[in-house]
Amino acid sequence: MSGIEQYMRECMCDSAHDTQHVLRVQKYATDIAAHEKGADLAVLEAACLLHDIGRAEQYADLRVDHAACGAIKARRWLEANGYKIEFAQAVADCIETHRFRSNDPPSSLEAKILFDADKLDACGAMGMARTLFYKAHVGLSLYMLDDSGAVPDGTTDSEDTFFREYKFKLEKLYGRFYTRRGEELAQSRRKAAGDFYEALLREARECHEISK
Amino acid sequence: MSGIEQYMRECMCDSAHDTQHVLRVQKYATDIAAHEKGADLAVLEAACLLHDIGRAEQYADLRVDHAACGAIKARRWLEANGYKIEFAQAVADCIETHRFRSNDPPSSLEAKILFDADKLDACGAMGMARTLFYKAHVGLSLYMLDDSGAVPDGTTDSEDTFFREYKFKLEKLYGRFYTRRGEELAQSRRKAAGDFYEALLREARECHEISK
Repeated sequence: MSGIEQYMRECMCDSAHDTQHVLRVQKYATDIAAHEKGADLAVLEAACLLHDIGRAEQYADLRVDHAACGAIKARRWLEANGYKIEFAQAVADCIETHRFRSNDPPSSLEAKILFDADKLDACGAMGMARTLFYKAHVGLSLYMLDDSGAVPDGTTDSEDTFFREYKFKLEKLYGRFYTRRGEELAQSRRKAAGDFYEALLREARECHEISK
Repeated sequence: MSGIEQYMRECMCDSAHDTQHVLRVQKYATDIAAHEKGADLAVLEAACLLHDIGRAEQYADLRVDHAACGAIKARRWLEANGYKIEFAQAVADCIETHRFRSNDPPSSLEAKILFDADKLDACGAMGMARTLFYKAHVGLSLYMLDDSGAVPDGTTDSEDTFFREYKFKLEKLYGRFYTRRGEELAQSRRKAAGDFYEALLREARECHEISK
């Protein structure tokens, strides 16, 4: 195990963003890079391994942006462990722009590949499972009931429910890829996510319709 | 809100077994009771509301059985709040036998209805979502990798992963209902759970096959 991987494992703190997520992102990035030309594979590997090391700080204080915090931590650790300043900066740039909810889009090829690889793990059944992990970690619910006791689809929820997350983030992911390969893999998983959301909404509604 | 419901809300402690779960179980029980003859609806309602009040004690010490603990807490609370001893005992008997992993099957009609109503909420897409909530709450993973780096289906996992839970519990639920109505509702949700598991397993395997 490399020193970078060892450092990553020390920083991981929840089931939604665990070592398995990081290893999947690394594998997706490897696949996407094989379809693109000219990616710096060393920068990309380090960026994949370290992209979520700012999560603990964000959990401790929700005003912290884990991407910005992770970029700073990664650059510091790499420079302190003998990596060149240019390498550390290229890795930090990828990490800084990997977040979906951001107005700071990725610019380098490696940053675009990391963005797509990370977003791929929020697609399909895997994305639904990881979002449920995250919601449980922060103590949130699947859905809210409206004033009539019915289950809305998520678009009008005032709390950050799972259904709201699906309607405002997960459902919209599929049109936001930078690489052709990333989009191709994402599209192949789109139906599984939609089917699960529809089944969950149908079951919740059927249940709350009983003896209203 | 009744005193019993107020007490239930004070005892709930995680996303998998939250107030929404309890209210769904109550609704399923109402539906099943309408299809059966002679259920004591007051006993059934109290048993549904209080069935998971022993969860916090089980989280604090995994050797505690939340069903046994919840039965004791429910009987004590009901007796202390003016309910008759026979009523409190009937409610406690339902709670004591509602657990799937138990050699103590439900005997009264109300106990069988509570068992089925609670198991219904572990079926279908809802059951998958709630199990993911629970796995995150106790810090467990979706799957393990075997020695070759492949993703097994869960049956050989040495840790208590989500895939293992699906193969050993969730997949087997559908043949374990005591009432015809419970089984009918469960069967209508079986496919959604199986489809989600298959999609998750396929996506995990596709990912870990990359550049092995």
